[in-house]
Amino acid sequence: MTSAVSIREVAPRDGLQNEAPIPTDAKIALIDALSGTGVGRIEAVSFVHPRAIPQMADADEVWAGMTRNPDVRYSALVPNTRGAERARRAGFREIEVVVSASDTHNRRNLNRSTADSLDDIAALIPLVHEAGATVEVIVATSFGCPFEGDVDPSDVASLVERVRADGADRIAFGDTTGMATPRRVRDLLAEVRPDLLHFHDTRGTGLANVLTALDLGITEFDASVGGIGGCPYAPGAAGNIATEELVHMLHDMGIATGIDLDKLITVAEMAEKVIGRTLASGVLRAGPRTRLV
Amino acid sequence: MTSAVSIREVAPRDGLQNEAPIPTDAKIALIDALSGTGVGRIEAVSFVHPRAIPQMADADEVWAGMTRNPDVRYSALVPNTRGAERARRAGFREIEVVVSASDTHNRRNLNRSTADSLDDIAALIPLVHEAGATVEVIVATSFGCPFEGDVDPSDVASLVERVRADGADRIAFGDTTGMATPRRVRDLLAEVRPDLLHFHDTRGTGLANVLTALDLGITEFDASVGGIGGCPYAPGAAGNIATEELVHMLHDMGIATGIDLDKLITVAEMAEKVIGRTLASGVLRAGPRTRLV
Repeated sequence: MTSAVSIREVAPRDGLQNEAPIPTDAKIALIDALSGTGVGRIEAVSFVHPRAIPQMADADEVWAGMTRNPDVRYSALVPNTRGAERARRAGFREIEVVVSASDTHNRRNLNRSTADSLDDIAALIPLVHEAGATVEVIVATSFGCPFEGDVDPSDVASLVERVRADGADRIAFGDTTGMATPRRVRDLLAEVRPDLLHFHDTRGTGLANVLTALDLGITEFDASVGGIGGCPYAPGAAGNIATEELVHMLHDMGIATGIDLDKLITVAEMAEKVIGRTLASGVLRAGPRTRLV
Repeated sequence: MTSAVSIREVAPRDGLQNEAPIPTDAKIALIDALSGTGVGRIEAVSFVHPRAIPQMADADEVWAGMTRNPDVRYSALVPNTRGAERARRAGFREIEVVVSASDTHNRRNLNRSTADSLDDIAALIPLVHEAGATVEVIVATSFGCPFEGDVDPSDVASLVERVRADGADRIAFGDTTGMATPRRVRDLLAEVRPDLLHFHDTRGTGLANVLTALDLGITEFDASVGGIGGCPYAPGAAGNIATEELVHMLHDMGIATGIDLDKLITVAEMAEKVIGRTLASGVLRAGPRTRLV
């Protein structure tokens, strides 16, 4: 098994997008605090239409106001070429574009078909490359769709083949609504392998999925401090896997992340105050296993 | 990997013991509802001193009032010979006695040393056997102690050797405060193997631990419907792994449990109403992965 894992912290984007809006300065403080934990990558903002996702309407202000740590790689998520233009102009070097394996989910999320998104991505990639930035394609609903049910791994594989042919630099599989399980991770990765996995912990299998993926050689994972970000289709359900729970398990296994767990828990406490609700992270509640009574 | 797993439902005992007391008739209704889910084993009550654990003061009334399903094996937990006598008199055929691998935890939990508990267990086993019942020794704090920290696997192995020599029929390892991780499961099971594992999900690793244990050939697990039962040392932290989360993952892997997941979720909803707080079970909140929007 690998001796190191690279974690991308996604609370500022995927986390906050699924919470009630918080002030710009609170976002900046959260990102700056995360930048000091040792985490190597942060998904900072998304450039989406403010009517679609008002939580991200201040993306330019957040990016301009935060302190850029030279040891951290910051990325922005975009839904289409228009968003990619904004991310380029803002100076992002790593741009993620999302497309759903499920057509119904893509229409609900991006208001167009998966095929139309793929055409747009094909046009977007050279524009991003011209600016010297990279494109990661995040395949949402890779492990299942809340509207269509199971997604055939071969459909995901076809989509990956298409975007790779169009020049995508990296591929991530998103477990958008927590439908991944150890079995589904094995099934999909037997068919096609991503660079990075993005799991939610909607049904308790978050870290079991990570364990399965580690066993299959995956070494890059998304996670959200405090587990912030819920599931939009299941009120009250947990969101992304909590970064501190992931780090806690990995460090215990002797797998390095570069992250200071104590600092990270302090950021989770701060995030909980900002969000204003009790977060679902066990390591936030109980501390590391080595914390004695 | 195994094709079937045997789950012991522990909500009526380990779950309720760590919640505010509920009425006797609610306990009876919970056990009767669980008995109809297809689960093969239920830890129904414990015979402990009512001053120590007032939540279990009505153990005799619960056992007398519930409907015994002939397809379910019911067990009682006891802390000592006195409790075992009560369980015997009540007619239990399966008796669990608890002892902590950590001396400090044993003193806090049972008000005596681990060595004294072991002597008592040695005296208790023949009495239980005379009544035609079996004794399972549950080794609490097998994966760590909230007062002492890490527990050496060789200490657990010595304890197991002792109680097996004294006639224990079965051994369970209890992850009393959720200190188990995949790494700790591997470390301990490399040294000594139990018949059954009892995990908490205090730090998000509950199902990851199960996955690791399955990989090592373990086929019996405790779980608590709705994940009821908290961690006494970490207010607000999750308790036992939720039975419906365990069943959901196992069935998805093609591993049979005999349990009807839909019925089980209905019982979890009922348990949540009785307990009167939002339970930490993801499958209770979001439903199975196949539940569409």
